[in-house]
Amino acid sequence: MLGLLAFAVQAEDGHDLWMRYVPIDAANAAASRSHATELVAADATPVQSAARAELARGLGGLLGVAPAMSDTVTRDGAVVVGTRASSRVIARLRLDTRQLGAEGYLIRSVRVDGHAATVIAANEDIGALYGAFHFLRLLQTGQSLENLDLREAPRVKLRVLNHWDNLDGHVERGYAGASIWDWHKLPDWRDPRYTDYARANASLGINGTVLNNVNSNALSLTPMYLEKTAALADVFRPYGIRVYLSARFSAPIEIGGLETADPLDPAVRRWWKDKADEIYRTIPDFGGFLVKANSEGQPGPQDYGRTHADGANMLADALAPHGGTVMWRAFVYSHEEPDDRAKQAYTEFVPHDGRFRGNVLVQVKNGAIDFQPREPFHPLFGAMPKTPLMMEFQITKEYLGFATHLVYLGPLYEEALKADTRVRGPGSTVAKVIDGSLHGDTLPKSRTTGMAGVANIGADRNWSGSHFDQANWYVFGRMAWNPESSARAIADEWVRMTFSNDAAFVGPVVEMMMGSREAAVDYMTPLGLHHLMGRGHHYGPGPWVEGGPRADWTSVYYHRASRDGIGFDRSATGSNAVAQYAPAVADEFGDVERVPEEFLLWFHHVPWDHRTASGRPLWDELVHRYTRGVDYVKKMRGTWQGLESRVDAERHAQVASFLGIQEKEAQWWRDASIAYFQTFSGRPLPEGEAPPAHSLEYYESLQFPYAPGDGK
Amino acid sequence: MLGLLAFAVQAEDGHDLWMRYVPIDAANAAASRSHATELVAADATPVQSAARAELARGLGGLLGVAPAMSDTVTRDGAVVVGTRASSRVIARLRLDTRQLGAEGYLIRSVRVDGHAATVIAANEDIGALYGAFHFLRLLQTGQSLENLDLREAPRVKLRVLNHWDNLDGHVERGYAGASIWDWHKLPDWRDPRYTDYARANASLGINGTVLNNVNSNALSLTPMYLEKTAALADVFRPYGIRVYLSARFSAPIEIGGLETADPLDPAVRRWWKDKADEIYRTIPDFGGFLVKANSEGQPGPQDYGRTHADGANMLADALAPHGGTVMWRAFVYSHEEPDDRAKQAYTEFVPHDGRFRGNVLVQVKNGAIDFQPREPFHPLFGAMPKTPLMMEFQITKEYLGFATHLVYLGPLYEEALKADTRVRGPGSTVAKVIDGSLHGDTLPKSRTTGMAGVANIGADRNWSGSHFDQANWYVFGRMAWNPESSARAIADEWVRMTFSNDAAFVGPVVEMMMGSREAAVDYMTPLGLHHLMGRGHHYGPGPWVEGGPRADWTSVYYHRASRDGIGFDRSATGSNAVAQYAPAVADEFGDVERVPEEFLLWFHHVPWDHRTASGRPLWDELVHRYTRGVDYVKKMRGTWQGLESRVDAERHAQVASFLGIQEKEAQWWRDASIAYFQTFSGRPLPEGEAPPAHSLEYYESLQFPYAPGDGK
Repeated sequence: MLGLLAFAVQAEDGHDLWMRYVPIDAANAAASRSHATELVAADATPVQSAARAELARGLGGLLGVAPAMSDTVTRDGAVVVGTRASSRVIARLRLDTRQLGAEGYLIRSVRVDGHAATVIAANEDIGALYGAFHFLRLLQTGQSLENLDLREAPRVKLRVLNHWDNLDGHVERGYAGASIWDWHKLPDWRDPRYTDYARANASLGINGTVLNNVNSNALSLTPMYLEKTAALADVFRPYGIRVYLSARFSAPIEIGGLETADPLDPAVRRWWKDKADEIYRTIPDFGGFLVKANSEGQPGPQDYGRTHADGANMLADALAPHGGTVMWRAFVYSHEEPDDRAKQAYTEFVPHDGRFRGNVLVQVKNGAIDFQPREPFHPLFGAMPKTPLMMEFQITKEYLGFATHLVYLGPLYEEALKADTRVRGPGSTVAKVIDGSLHGDTLPKSRTTGMAGVANIGADRNWSGSHFDQANWYVFGRMAWNPESSARAIADEWVRMTFSNDAAFVGPVVEMMMGSREAAVDYMTPLGLHHLMGRGHHYGPGPWVEGGPRADWTSVYYHRASRDGIGFDRSATGSNAVAQYAPAVADEFGDVERVPEEFLLWFHHVPWDHRTASGRPLWDELVHRYTRGVDYVKKMRGTWQGLESRVDAERHAQVASFLGIQEKEAQWWRDASIAYFQTFSGRPLPEGEAPPAHSLEYYESLQFPYAPGDGK
Repeated sequence: MLGLLAFAVQAEDGHDLWMRYVPIDAANAAASRSHATELVAADATPVQSAARAELARGLGGLLGVAPAMSDTVTRDGAVVVGTRASSRVIARLRLDTRQLGAEGYLIRSVRVDGHAATVIAANEDIGALYGAFHFLRLLQTGQSLENLDLREAPRVKLRVLNHWDNLDGHVERGYAGASIWDWHKLPDWRDPRYTDYARANASLGINGTVLNNVNSNALSLTPMYLEKTAALADVFRPYGIRVYLSARFSAPIEIGGLETADPLDPAVRRWWKDKADEIYRTIPDFGGFLVKANSEGQPGPQDYGRTHADGANMLADALAPHGGTVMWRAFVYSHEEPDDRAKQAYTEFVPHDGRFRGNVLVQVKNGAIDFQPREPFHPLFGAMPKTPLMMEFQITKEYLGFATHLVYLGPLYEEALKADTRVRGPGSTVAKVIDGSLHGDTLPKSRTTGMAGVANIGADRNWSGSHFDQANWYVFGRMAWNPESSARAIADEWVRMTFSNDAAFVGPVVEMMMGSREAAVDYMTPLGLHHLMGRGHHYGPGPWVEGGPRADWTSVYYHRASRDGIGFDRSATGSNAVAQYAPAVADEFGDVERVPEEFLLWFHHVPWDHRTASGRPLWDELVHRYTRGVDYVKKMRGTWQGLESRVDAERHAQVASFLGIQEKEAQWWRDASIAYFQTFSGRPLPEGEAPPAHSLEYYESLQFPYAPGDGK
């Protein structure tokens, strides 16, 4: 029997994400079982069924015994799940759910008919499902089920993944294999992984997904593809997830047979209205459109002399009767515009503040360039008090080592959300812009709020290309629910659910994760440097990249290294991008003595002998940081090696292999960058620093025509 | 405990292929366990370790208890595995292994030191590994381990998969997801699935794999990619699998900096010689090159006025010092050549018979067009008595319904291999051409033999895109080992290993599979019709396809339908392609009264009222067969539905869904084809035949720009 069991054990290949539901420690199991003896949960609706099935599966796995199903509380340890409408038990408890909204829940230890019970209550079914996942999470993270009294409600309304997935299965900036959407076999074949995808998202509170690339194809809006999209919507609906589509602005021409896509043209407006009507006939709870317009070659309203507001409002008007939302991206910069690229979105959008319809969200990347390892917060945050701004984070690591580098993005998200815009004095954080609380008085009353994450999900067995990249999907979801969450607390939670509650494992791994993003900044783009990666594919270092179709797609545009120094002068003596921030922030960023050192070269052009906070001259400090980044990766490898006995062999081996790749590539980044910048600094390496392993010519000669994720 | 077990059970997602090793019936288990009490197997070499590990894993899974490891036979029921060199027990048994060659094995019930034992003996380690898989197969298929006396040796030397995988991960004509080769993370990350791939192939006796597309990219031959290929070779080596690469003929220009790729140019010859030396320094057991030259736009020796023999021999000379082989494809037809495409390979290659080096195999597709649902055997078979010809089958179902149609290719392979070329009288089968026995007296002494299959493998969880497509990988491997195998026996074996030994399941499923290919012929291309699929992607019907870059890429070129009839006249009154066959065959194929009806329209242009064997006029017979094909799919759906209780829910659901798609698409093929051909026949549908569901314009209007596998 033992032999058989050994062979039946589930492989730890990462496919189950943070929902592994493996047996909890024997020490805790008995106590926990006494709090999950029976399950009182309706299944009259698909969402109710999802909650009940998840609890049965989760409790069965975690506690080794599935709870009995019951219509009412018959013994101590019952778990009662539902809403006033779905559960007579809950209706009788007269719980105060007024602050929970449609998606919130409470979990409370109560007595029902003389029995100890735990109630998971909400105003709507979806809240109860979220509560069920929270209840399971308590068990998964080794917490007690005694004396519970928890209340949760999301701070942001639209918590959305953006899939940059093409119809041919290629994922732009995807490092986890092909798209999980098997368009060819849809709508007939509904792969079970679609359900697992929905479960994983619901477990985090993600409630929307944009299925197709922002660089979009109008065919996604044709009947054949809408039928396929509808099949996915059917699968996701029980998990509270609405589907959205990226809409190609020129679709009226490409699939509508019109000669223009001018947003003020009545025929165009009619086409979009009819298209919206058609979509909602197929998908009654369709979420809306995401649009990338007049950006990097995409069509848009400016092709017709119209504004972004004109374009967004036309789509908003088409969607409004159905309750749909337009997510209009602010990631725009012009080919023709000679001004600092970092300034252009602000320049373009601020004048339109207040001119967008109530069902438009302007979607703004965390920084003004493009998902770099570190950027200061985008100056649009706080600058459009009459317009709801939606955060766009990148979960896929386009600029942070693809799938093989262990880089936990929690600290990056936290840094961006906690950044203080100062527009209404200290404490005017980006988080408060996003959740609408900072400008509650000036925003439209009908406003919504949102946070988007560019997904790192693909057909790879472990979904995200690496085990640790699952944490980035996880932390995005948790921070979208509550933008003031702690990256460290979420890492702790994720490690426990994904790997183990063993304190000797959790502690070192959380430490490793928490420093990993700073390490990537160090070995790629220290001290405020940015946009130094290889051309096109963005794999590896390319500080020498110059020429080509546009200056602001090169590295030399951003680092501006020369004999006299390095860095982009965005102070008043330069592009004056600092002026786009609130005065208190502008003063700080604009002053080379006061600017936080991590943004030094973002805002200033500084001589090589500039004295840094450490006392080292700039060149020495730069080299020091490159080396520090590599050393951190070496330290992570050592830490991970020492944890071999505390984790399954399969996942340990892959993580160890990837850390080996990361170390090689971190060294490559350091060496190539130093070799290149030294041609400008003309200075020797500081004492004790190893010279680059190869010549600069060697690094410049490397070609990677098939690096994954390239945006062909 | 029961609860826990229930949750730990392995999902039946098809990933384990025919190597599931789940417990055998309790009824047989006791008897079988008594024949596998201990395992006496060396592990001094990687191949020995692979055999030992496979037996431990397989026996542990199948019997519920892993056998004890022992250095010698200590009890009844020992299993002794190895060679004279690796096993003293086997050396002492003095078995006659003379006929087994390097890869064969015997399995025999013997007594050793007074104990009953089973010996798996071979001349080389790899034979013992193959024997180990055979031994496991006995258990998997419900056979007894009593009184065994088996001998097996492969009839064909090179049993090779051809992966049409591009470096960017796209698989040309692949319907199972992206390529399994993660080139970007190689050589560092050796995905465990590479080992599973090798195990699966070794279990069938497949001993070679061409990693990259025949439409090849010269970069595969650069040091960066050779290092990656070497890592895969390392993983495959313990399983007796050698790696090959498709070589782009113009590589000396593209990556060598030469101005020509002329095979008679000394600098070009030197470049290939140096390249071969470089490859063998990296991969000492490299298998050789596969080449598609002067075919469908690929470069080749004719670009320089040289012959295919000149090109092949240059590469052969480069590989010869290292023992490598050139597999040179005969799939050629010229853009400029107005002659019947079916004739061109023969015309091109026969004059060169005897001019190829001893380490060249000419690789010939089973038919003269291109892997159609049915083709007569290729006239090259038997026509080159001095040249070893290698069979090329397609495993991936480019023309047979992609991944969703249940079409078992065993009968197609068997039909091709059993076809009688008559070149040396009756019994001159294609199988005997392939295994070298037909022309043993005229072939070069140093000859090798081979069979290639274009792989249907991708990153999909079940490897092949559908559960039943695994059977096509399986039957290819088994037929490559023995080209005279029975497709039915192999189907029976595969069903037992993959699903169940339950007779009430095996019988109906084998029946279903055995008729499935004929059904596809019926609903796609009955009565010898061919090449009628959609343009480019080859998805769905396209009998109306005409125009475009070349006539022989259209459908009208092949069906030649008009008011007066339908079919391609390849008799003496037409292209006279029949004359390329031996006279006895040519007489039969060339005579409209004697030609087998399944090839009627392949060889003859026939009036619509031509009387067929059934007594029906041709038009009625055509419609009858289209409908019969659809009806067979309906019957398969019914059969499968009735088997729901006899198979796991997960695989049952996917097969059921795919059969639903197949029925829809079979109906589509029938309806579109009938709607189209009726415009020529001008005849009514026979009594009782339903009219097409849509108009011909509707079918012609359908567009599938993102159908998978397109050869971009």
